[in-house]
Amino acid sequence: MVKVAVLGFGVVGSGVAEVITGKGDGMKKKVDELLELKYILDVRDFPDSPFAACFVTDFSVIEKDPEVSVVVETIGGVGAALDFTERALKAGKSVVTSNKELVATHGRRLMDLAAEHGAIYLFEASVGGGIPILRPLSECMAANDILEICGILNGTANYIFTRMVQDGVPFEQALKGAQANGYAEQNPSADVEGYDTCRKLSILSSIAFGWHLLPDQIPTKGITQITLEDEAYAAACRRRIKLLGRAIAGEDGTVCAYVEPHFVSEENPLAGVEDVFNAIMVKGNVTGDVMFYGRGAGKLPTASAVVADVIAAARKMERAGYQPWQENRPACVASVDALSSRWYVRLAEGELADSEVLTIPQAGEGEHGYLTQAMPRPQLEKALEGKKVLSVIRVLD
Amino acid sequence: MVKVAVLGFGVVGSGVAEVITGKGDGMKKKVDELLELKYILDVRDFPDSPFAACFVTDFSVIEKDPEVSVVVETIGGVGAALDFTERALKAGKSVVTSNKELVATHGRRLMDLAAEHGAIYLFEASVGGGIPILRPLSECMAANDILEICGILNGTANYIFTRMVQDGVPFEQALKGAQANGYAEQNPSADVEGYDTCRKLSILSSIAFGWHLLPDQIPTKGITQITLEDEAYAAACRRRIKLLGRAIAGEDGTVCAYVEPHFVSEENPLAGVEDVFNAIMVKGNVTGDVMFYGRGAGKLPTASAVVADVIAAARKMERAGYQPWQENRPACVASVDALSSRWYVRLAEGELADSEVLTIPQAGEGEHGYLTQAMPRPQLEKALEGKKVLSVIRVLD
Repeated sequence: MVKVAVLGFGVVGSGVAEVITGKGDGMKKKVDELLELKYILDVRDFPDSPFAACFVTDFSVIEKDPEVSVVVETIGGVGAALDFTERALKAGKSVVTSNKELVATHGRRLMDLAAEHGAIYLFEASVGGGIPILRPLSECMAANDILEICGILNGTANYIFTRMVQDGVPFEQALKGAQANGYAEQNPSADVEGYDTCRKLSILSSIAFGWHLLPDQIPTKGITQITLEDEAYAAACRRRIKLLGRAIAGEDGTVCAYVEPHFVSEENPLAGVEDVFNAIMVKGNVTGDVMFYGRGAGKLPTASAVVADVIAAARKMERAGYQPWQENRPACVASVDALSSRWYVRLAEGELADSEVLTIPQAGEGEHGYLTQAMPRPQLEKALEGKKVLSVIRVLD
Repeated sequence: MVKVAVLGFGVVGSGVAEVITGKGDGMKKKVDELLELKYILDVRDFPDSPFAACFVTDFSVIEKDPEVSVVVETIGGVGAALDFTERALKAGKSVVTSNKELVATHGRRLMDLAAEHGAIYLFEASVGGGIPILRPLSECMAANDILEICGILNGTANYIFTRMVQDGVPFEQALKGAQANGYAEQNPSADVEGYDTCRKLSILSSIAFGWHLLPDQIPTKGITQITLEDEAYAAACRRRIKLLGRAIAGEDGTVCAYVEPHFVSEENPLAGVEDVFNAIMVKGNVTGDVMFYGRGAGKLPTASAVVADVIAAARKMERAGYQPWQENRPACVASVDALSSRWYVRLAEGELADSEVLTIPQAGEGEHGYLTQAMPRPQLEKALEGKKVLSVIRVLD
């Protein structure tokens, strides 16, 4: 039997306990005969939980118990989560997490620490919830150079766009609906400011390109400025607005990575991704485009991805770990300012030369939407100097 | 260095040679420092090939060479391919293949044979071309009971449907176009009669449910009867016709698997899969729906999947093999006759009670399309007795 400890009894942590033990609605009897849940670390009391007997409040109990060989970290953040992860790895215990912030900022060091102590650090659930993406990216596409990653990585932002388009409600109201449905936190900034997408893109890029791309090297723009008028202009040119994380490999070994809302053509499979679903398009030099699609968040999908990693770690599978990332390469970070795209521009008045004009019935007096020719952002900004600009959104070609 | 032998220098085999050596357009220099192409087995002469020095015509040269540790079988069929695969495995060499017919009919036995001789039998490329699907299904969804698999598994059939809808050409002409473009063989029956989809569904089901479901246990219906009028009726109810392989797990441990064209709602992500693309939807009890999408065939996508398996085998990765399948379970095969669905029915005359009526401008005098209530096929056939039936197609709910 492989004994497992779960750190943090929140949404994901409790889901992991349910999946491992089979105590929960729609669960298998037991996910794997090999696994036994021994501890749950939480400072709170859960006297009525079916797992009441497992609770401990002191991490050192887990750290010092030689029976525990896999630790699941679902605390989140980079405080206690980092401390406990380091201590568990140093004690030779493998660690499985869904904590994208910790992986995006300290993943490389923690993978090295794991290797030094004969343990494994796994984090499939940190990107795309229950969608298998990190392992396929790392293994099944081993014969490819990855040319580009482009994904809808945040279900909350995508849910907000879907409500705006389908129900015609403005951003603020769609966000309140997301909060009421439990999709968005009371402080929604990680979702709507793009930080969550940025962290996931950092992890994807690091696996795809083999060196640790840090979140603060990824320029990030959120969705709080998107209006119903922007959505109407998008529909007028058969496009949908989606928050995308993109990382593009240059021929010179550089990577241009950024997070921004985009106009996405309805012909593109990413345009049809609705509600809280995520989709990640990976372009390989040999395979071409491959897309992974599914629920990007939620208690049980995320828990199932965590537990699949726990099974891999428990079986001490030789190649369970990802290919180790090299160190960060500041010189290989290409500026997004050099990336040429078409642009959607909405002007309160005046005109924009060399652009396709978009019209919507509800446009204000003198207002127009435009789709420009392809150009880098600095050139666009120059062209917009002195104009009354209401919106600017990049177009995904 | 791990020495590799490729059996069969056809489309996929030559692609594998190019990807391994990096000798080909858009290739990396070399996919993996570890790999060296030592032999190519083919009865034909290729004096001008960059691999000319590698060719042999006698399999026993490869079989007896202790330096060769991985054999790639891209011969196809179940004749020489089976013989060489068995001999290679018995010699302790791992075998990687894209041969869906061989895996679907003999996969279980060959996996056992591999295990007996300390080798691995891998076949990611046999389903979905370059889309990573078998390994994610086998590993990443380990914490799930698979409830259903539903996929567009044959790119040729899907290309034909796309041409019929987009270009308004009838089946025969669309098929000729597919042949002209190299998508369909001169004898296209494996594609258009559904056998290819059937074999891939056999492999997916065996991995998903853990026991070997044989192709002849999967009732299979092709697409040769589909007309432009059927496509028009599908469009009239906002659906698309797709050839689907489906396997549904019953609560009693049975599996209902079949291959048929379906009316698929435009809301379903499978409806938007066009041209030669494949998409496979997997429903897990914990993860919910997950979809894998990409080019399902083609020289280089398929070759890249083969080579990813070669790398896994070469590194002798402990868990590179799939979870072994149990023996076939005839008692667990549920009849598709019991599966209740709505149906599209086209009648030359007469009416169909309790059904939604569909109309298209080009309908013949007295002709109508219908969408029935949900019922099993035998009940539908009873309701259609004595009527002039032009088409019947299952609706995917």
